[in-house]
Amino acid sequence: MGELKVFVGTSVPELGREVAEELGIKLGEINIKRFACGEIYVRYLETVRGHDVFLIQSLCPPVNENLVELLIMVDALRRASAGRINAVIPHYGYARQERKDASREPISARMVADLLETVGVDRVITVDLHAPAIQGFFSIPVDHLTALPILAEYYRKKDLPNASVVALDAGGIKNAEKLAKRLDLPLVGMYKRHPAHNVAEVTHVIGEIEGRIPIIIEDMIDTGGTLIEGVKALLQHGAVPEIHVCATHPVFSDPITERLQHPAIKEVVVTDTIPIPPEKMLPKITVMSIASLIASAIKRVHEETSVSELFV
Amino acid sequence: MGELKVFVGTSVPELGREVAEELGIKLGEINIKRFACGEIYVRYLETVRGHDVFLIQSLCPPVNENLVELLIMVDALRRASAGRINAVIPHYGYARQERKDASREPISARMVADLLETVGVDRVITVDLHAPAIQGFFSIPVDHLTALPILAEYYRKKDLPNASVVALDAGGIKNAEKLAKRLDLPLVGMYKRHPAHNVAEVTHVIGEIEGRIPIIIEDMIDTGGTLIEGVKALLQHGAVPEIHVCATHPVFSDPITERLQHPAIKEVVVTDTIPIPPEKMLPKITVMSIASLIASAIKRVHEETSVSELFV
Amino acid sequence: MGELKVFVGTSVPELGREVAEELGIKLGEINIKRFACGEIYVRYLETVRGHDVFLIQSLCPPVNENLVELLIMVDALRRASAGRINAVIPHYGYARQERKDASREPISARMVADLLETVGVDRVITVDLHAPAIQGFFSIPVDHLTALPILAEYYRKKDLPNASVVALDAGGIKNAEKLAKRLDLPLVGMYKRHPAHNVAEVTHVIGEIEGRIPIIIEDMIDTGGTLIEGVKALLQHGAVPEIHVCATHPVFSDPITERLQHPAIKEVVVTDTIPIPPEKMLPKITVMSIASLIASAIKRVHEETSVSELFV
Amino acid sequence: MGELKVFVGTSVPELGREVAEELGIKLGEINIKRFACGEIYVRYLETVRGHDVFLIQSLCPPVNENLVELLIMVDALRRASAGRINAVIPHYGYARQERKDASREPISARMVADLLETVGVDRVITVDLHAPAIQGFFSIPVDHLTALPILAEYYRKKDLPNASVVALDAGGIKNAEKLAKRLDLPLVGMYKRHPAHNVAEVTHVIGEIEGRIPIIIEDMIDTGGTLIEGVKALLQHGAVPEIHVCATHPVFSDPITERLQHPAIKEVVVTDTIPIPPEKMLPKITVMSIASLIASAIKRVHEETSVSELFV
Amino acid sequence: MGELKVFVGTSVPELGREVAEELGIKLGEINIKRFACGEIYVRYLETVRGHDVFLIQSLCPPVNENLVELLIMVDALRRASAGRINAVIPHYGYARQERKDASREPISARMVADLLETVGVDRVITVDLHAPAIQGFFSIPVDHLTALPILAEYYRKKDLPNASVVALDAGGIKNAEKLAKRLDLPLVGMYKRHPAHNVAEVTHVIGEIEGRIPIIIEDMIDTGGTLIEGVKALLQHGAVPEIHVCATHPVFSDPITERLQHPAIKEVVVTDTIPIPPEKMLPKITVMSIASLIASAIKRVHEETSVSELFV
Amino acid sequence: MGELKVFVGTSVPELGREVAEELGIKLGEINIKRFACGEIYVRYLETVRGHDVFLIQSLCPPVNENLVELLIMVDALRRASAGRINAVIPHYGYARQERKDASREPISARMVADLLETVGVDRVITVDLHAPAIQGFFSIPVDHLTALPILAEYYRKKDLPNASVVALDAGGIKNAEKLAKRLDLPLVGMYKRHPAHNVAEVTHVIGEIEGRIPIIIEDMIDTGGTLIEGVKALLQHGAVPEIHVCATHPVFSDPITERLQHPAIKEVVVTDTIPIPPEKMLPKITVMSIASLIASAIKRVHEETSVSELFV
Repeated sequence: MGELKVFVGTSVPELGREVAEELGIKLGEINIKRFACGEIYVRYLETVRGHDVFLIQSLCPPVNENLVELLIMVDALRRASAGRINAVIPHYGYARQERKDASREPISARMVADLLETVGVDRVITVDLHAPAIQGFFSIPVDHLTALPILAEYYRKKDLPNASVVALDAGGIKNAEKLAKRLDLPLVGMYKRHPAHNVAEVTHVIGEIEGRIPIIIEDMIDTGGTLIEGVKALLQHGAVPEIHVCATHPVFSDPITERLQHPAIKEVVVTDTIPIPPEKMLPKITVMSIASLIASAIKRVHEETSVSELFV
Repeated sequence: MGELKVFVGTSVPELGREVAEELGIKLGEINIKRFACGEIYVRYLETVRGHDVFLIQSLCPPVNENLVELLIMVDALRRASAGRINAVIPHYGYARQERKDASREPISARMVADLLETVGVDRVITVDLHAPAIQGFFSIPVDHLTALPILAEYYRKKDLPNASVVALDAGGIKNAEKLAKRLDLPLVGMYKRHPAHNVAEVTHVIGEIEGRIPIIIEDMIDTGGTLIEGVKALLQHGAVPEIHVCATHPVFSDPITERLQHPAIKEVVVTDTIPIPPEKMLPKITVMSIASLIASAIKRVHEETSVSELFV
Repeated sequence: MGELKVFVGTSVPELGREVAEELGIKLGEINIKRFACGEIYVRYLETVRGHDVFLIQSLCPPVNENLVELLIMVDALRRASAGRINAVIPHYGYARQERKDASREPISARMVADLLETVGVDRVITVDLHAPAIQGFFSIPVDHLTALPILAEYYRKKDLPNASVVALDAGGIKNAEKLAKRLDLPLVGMYKRHPAHNVAEVTHVIGEIEGRIPIIIEDMIDTGGTLIEGVKALLQHGAVPEIHVCATHPVFSDPITERLQHPAIKEVVVTDTIPIPPEKMLPKITVMSIASLIASAIKRVHEETSVSELFV
Repeated sequence: MGELKVFVGTSVPELGREVAEELGIKLGEINIKRFACGEIYVRYLETVRGHDVFLIQSLCPPVNENLVELLIMVDALRRASAGRINAVIPHYGYARQERKDASREPISARMVADLLETVGVDRVITVDLHAPAIQGFFSIPVDHLTALPILAEYYRKKDLPNASVVALDAGGIKNAEKLAKRLDLPLVGMYKRHPAHNVAEVTHVIGEIEGRIPIIIEDMIDTGGTLIEGVKALLQHGAVPEIHVCATHPVFSDPITERLQHPAIKEVVVTDTIPIPPEKMLPKITVMSIASLIASAIKRVHEETSVSELFV
Repeated sequence: MGELKVFVGTSVPELGREVAEELGIKLGEINIKRFACGEIYVRYLETVRGHDVFLIQSLCPPVNENLVELLIMVDALRRASAGRINAVIPHYGYARQERKDASREPISARMVADLLETVGVDRVITVDLHAPAIQGFFSIPVDHLTALPILAEYYRKKDLPNASVVALDAGGIKNAEKLAKRLDLPLVGMYKRHPAHNVAEVTHVIGEIEGRIPIIIEDMIDTGGTLIEGVKALLQHGAVPEIHVCATHPVFSDPITERLQHPAIKEVVVTDTIPIPPEKMLPKITVMSIASLIASAIKRVHEETSVSELFV
Repeated sequence: MGELKVFVGTSVPELGREVAEELGIKLGEINIKRFACGEIYVRYLETVRGHDVFLIQSLCPPVNENLVELLIMVDALRRASAGRINAVIPHYGYARQERKDASREPISARMVADLLETVGVDRVITVDLHAPAIQGFFSIPVDHLTALPILAEYYRKKDLPNASVVALDAGGIKNAEKLAKRLDLPLVGMYKRHPAHNVAEVTHVIGEIEGRIPIIIEDMIDTGGTLIEGVKALLQHGAVPEIHVCATHPVFSDPITERLQHPAIKEVVVTDTIPIPPEKMLPKITVMSIASLIASAIKRVHEETSVSELFV
């Protein structure tokens, strides 16, 4: 399968550098530029013929730019006779459009999968998909990694015996359970419900929360709307106002900065699947690197050894 | 697009007849037989050339037999120059295998979609998919109908002002909400949780249930394991022991009959997406027909008018 | 191409074990189960990443169950990043539906080929196809093996100098010729014909048969209808009533057992491409194993050496 | 589906004209030329947008020229937005390469099917395929016509009560049976066999032939080798030396002319699926036109009425 | 094929409105929005089932946003059972990346074609492709329109008898010839050449230019680099310093505004395949609408009449 | 990827032998024959299983025969389990049909690409494509070699300090520039133009030509029409009547021989991408072999080292 080569798109340059360092190799040389009209140009500056190539590109904002850039990177790679093309997508964008909630909507998460297969991707490596069914949108193999052990290890070291792990809604309960189990902490679920027709929605909080420190876990934090509602409900139910929040993907769209400044939020732990722009990098934010997770997956895929222990 | 023609596979002969009756047409003549060795043989006994053909076949038990039969029906249809091939699949089997929960598993719900597209299906019409992301497993259009209005209408006529609509787990909450809204009844959610590591699982019941009649709603009832646990929890929380259960798909695998005989279950309302064998047809079971829903969808699809009001 | 790994489906467990033994390897560990509703679940219990995997599964009765099981096995394998997926199909079912004899029929043998390619099979290894044109139904390579040398060797050891090799119809003459040549015995053909319109069909027997022991050879024996007619015609033409029958594939559908009990049939020699259920295992049946043939093909395919001498 | 339009390639200009006449339409105007270097150029001289276009082209000698010409005609048609592209292929070349008889051979009949589907053919109409499994080489619908009724009608009018219908080998027996049945004449089969190892091949003639007039029927006549052997065997078995020969496809490769001059061959009846060059047009050759058969199929396909009564 | 429906993306809202007006229909209602994170959401607000839908979207800056938006629009359309999907792309972006000029480059113009076909586009209508071979990048039909008659008509009315039509380089000569012919004006070519190794490039100007008014024609104007060099060379060769410039596509990337302010450029005539932002809308720029050209093509495609007279 | 194996089609037997010799290997044994009816038969006489196979075949006259032969060679190779199939096409036929110049024309150069991909080619190696956009007609990798250094080296040795390199039209200017640069000679362009409507076409000659020896360079020479016009124009502009002509591809269709006999043409240098029949092999023609170029590309592709320095 030729040599291992890693190239990085313009979305996550820092992560790319760290992955290469973890692997003990030099990042592949590539020229990616945008013409004045906005069209992207790509050229590989070293041979890729027959090699086992990994392209690292997050589908984070500007998501459409990053998507087209990745597609063009793959097209050039295939025409240059790469041996195998592995798309490493730390954050898989459009993951929330994975079903039709109304008629005449797209299923954009499937469309992204189709585009990647069309240009010639042989395998996808990604982290904490918003919806696990997205794996089924691909015909090619998907190695679905999880950052949960990294987050768990952070809190294990922090040692918060008085904490509870909190899921903000039903969709997040599985992940929260896994974190609670690893930390040997109680699990708290939240659950919004209209008790009856025309009665205002009530947020139920189930589990041991009064007088405890919440560790909220989400797969991604976007504008923070659900988060802030959850914070308020937790406080109403007597939680200690030193709330920890963690998530794999810091999408961080406005008005996230304003919301994260809520005084009850003590710390926000995320990973570097998406780079945080400096103006949003509040002091209370901690970024854990997934570089060694990605590097480990790349190494195993390249050497054809089992990746299953890095899986969700 | 030629004439409307409807053929029915061996899985749901009665439903096929009713749909044809609703449409005011004769079911298409087809010879489907099994040779002594079990291989299926299909022959259409009337011309299908250029016509708009709808094949009705449920992927219910025996699911693999029914699946292969459908595939062969489609192959013959395509080779006979049908104008358009619409697969009407009242119950979409393998819908619970729509993600990988462990490494080296299949995603069989996607595979079924691929098989249908490979043999030449142009469109799928189906009812209450277990997981909505399955729509995204298809490249062809999917018309995703729902039997919920039929179930709602049944209870509306029954008039149970003292009832609550119950979802047995997080996955079912959306459907339960819709039913509750239509009936103007309170919603009750259930939620299983290990309060902490090594502590036994507790079923939380959230919402107004004490002294009320539960109407449990599920998308499908298979062996009834989750159902019976739910029944017990509801009784522990003071529900009136006259529980109503409804679901679109009566998969009804053993030991379902034994479980449905639980004295607190008063009535079980399902639809005919799957025929119930006589030995499982307990007196407390009521079957609502989806024939007119299916017929209406077929009519609109054939006439190219909007189907969206029949959609989930 | 990674290591050689062999997994076996539920259709031919014994053959699988023997093939592994011949190859001197352990069968791959796999969990194949059927849920109460009949849906199949598959999970590989060891890594297949990058390996050269051979799946052994016969498309024998219950043919539709075995077909869907094989498709699901392949889907899981592809998603688990197998390096190459080889489907070893000792008996290729639906092989008699390889043409349209009437309008609006399927060509199921082609459809099976399409399904296998769709899920991701890279190569098929099969034995004595009923119709050789089936190779042309695949775009992927087909290694088409033959059990004829095994059958020939059996009769060579038996030493029946007074025998004739018999083909029951025109379709079987090529195989019969090959066996006759290997055994240096005369060849006898049979041939049914209506001498004229409205005159009853006559079975012609061509060649040296009077006073000789017939060795009838067929590719498969299903219900035995053609066989028993042939036996009667041979006896009418003065054959010794100690008839030997051989075939690669013992499909053995009812009423085969009754028919094989015909006193003039002395012995029936078949292979283990299809397991014979105990209640059909008459004392006069001898089963030759194709395990070493299959093993040899697997070995050569894996090592990329020529397979042509194992071919039909 | 727009209007019916018929264009004809350079292989069968006369047949094209007759088909158009039968349909009562003007042949579509098309410019097909070969540049000095041999490359083919095609341009349609009238609009085809949205129309139901039938291209008539035989894959007869020069077969490769005719094949590429047809492919280019289809490419231009698809790019010009034809509504539906029907390839009418009176003689399907490469039909004898429909299986692998030795390792490392092509299956060219399948390859031709793939090429046609790749360039965009929607349907194939063809006549008396050498091997019926070729239908299964296509994913698109194939309307498989037969010239047998035309040949039968010819002999019915000729009124040869003393004749027998003869198949030269096992492969031709089905067609011969159909002709015999239509003419109410006896059927004669021929069958070559080595009675034993190292003994010269013997041609068996089965059925009533002594003192009768043979009507030999074949699907195609190429070099005439098998034919001339059959003629000799018939004469040895006492046939009247006034042999009639008929076939759908006059491939007529050298040395066919010399062989057809055998004095015992009284008449050769073929169709115009392949034009016979003047130098091969012996006086004893009669050509029946399939123009009305083709025209009838085109009309039914265009009007979407059943074609099945024109089928094999 | 159902009704004609036209929807417009966010790239050319004004052009969309004009096309609808020309066609005498209301633009289809569609909701296209961008979430805070930049992901695009699309929903059609009226039925498209079975209809003949035309989506108007230019691949102009921001080209990647517009491309992904178009792809998502198509995905939603296909899933909503549109009868036929026609992508009307007034300006085809990435058209200059239609070949590899160096190794390891992409061919992005082909990739865009592949993406459009993958999501389900049935036909493309576009205007003045930068390279005509791009038509061959599609398997689906492409209707390739030209704005040249619109530009010609403008200058015909202007009546500049003393003008010459100028092509700035070899690639533009064909278009210039067509314009010159329509206006009955002399043609002037330009041609850059290094007379020998290490000698500075010289721009040759061939044809009657001294004392004449140049009408420069280009397919697109991007940053204006080539244009401004051409202007200088023309002036050096004695052209009247009242230069007219025309082009179909005003890509207008910086520093185009500065360059167009060159005093010798009297007027710039372009079309509305790309909207010009107000800050770039110099008084000397005239925009001709292609709305009626597009509308005419849509009408003919919908009615399946010949489009060829609108073609390049 | 197995061993390197090279097989040659019937178009360029001599080139095949030379390439094998350069590589130091024996040409693979293959049986290619034509039946009496013109159908091609192919069989590989040695194993290709798992090997890295290169097929050398030019699409030169008889182009359709050579194309179909190549397609059949590939089909057999794929079915025989070749590891990788590389089509080495020294001359890519149909390259001038790479765009639609009028409506309802084919784009045959794309169609050829589609046919090659359909039968299973994994990579194409070709030389000096007439239009570089043809690379974009393929989805598979194309290694596009150039014979220009071979031609340059020939003239470098010849040492013609008084020469100018001439391009006959705009399309050829890029290649001419490259040759001029390598030889450090002046470049001359030619350029046909109608100075105005209804005025006869004039051939402009731009650059230093008077009293110099022209070296005309073309990618291919077909009938020589453009060439002879160019020769006349050069002489009119005072060129020394000792014209050198070079081209990669000697298509050499009639009346090329007559035209090349023009006394002012001193020498014609071409390569062996197309064999020149003896009757066209004028004494003034010199053939340079590209065998070592092809061999070098094959070696690098097989060893997965960079081919870029052999590229155009």
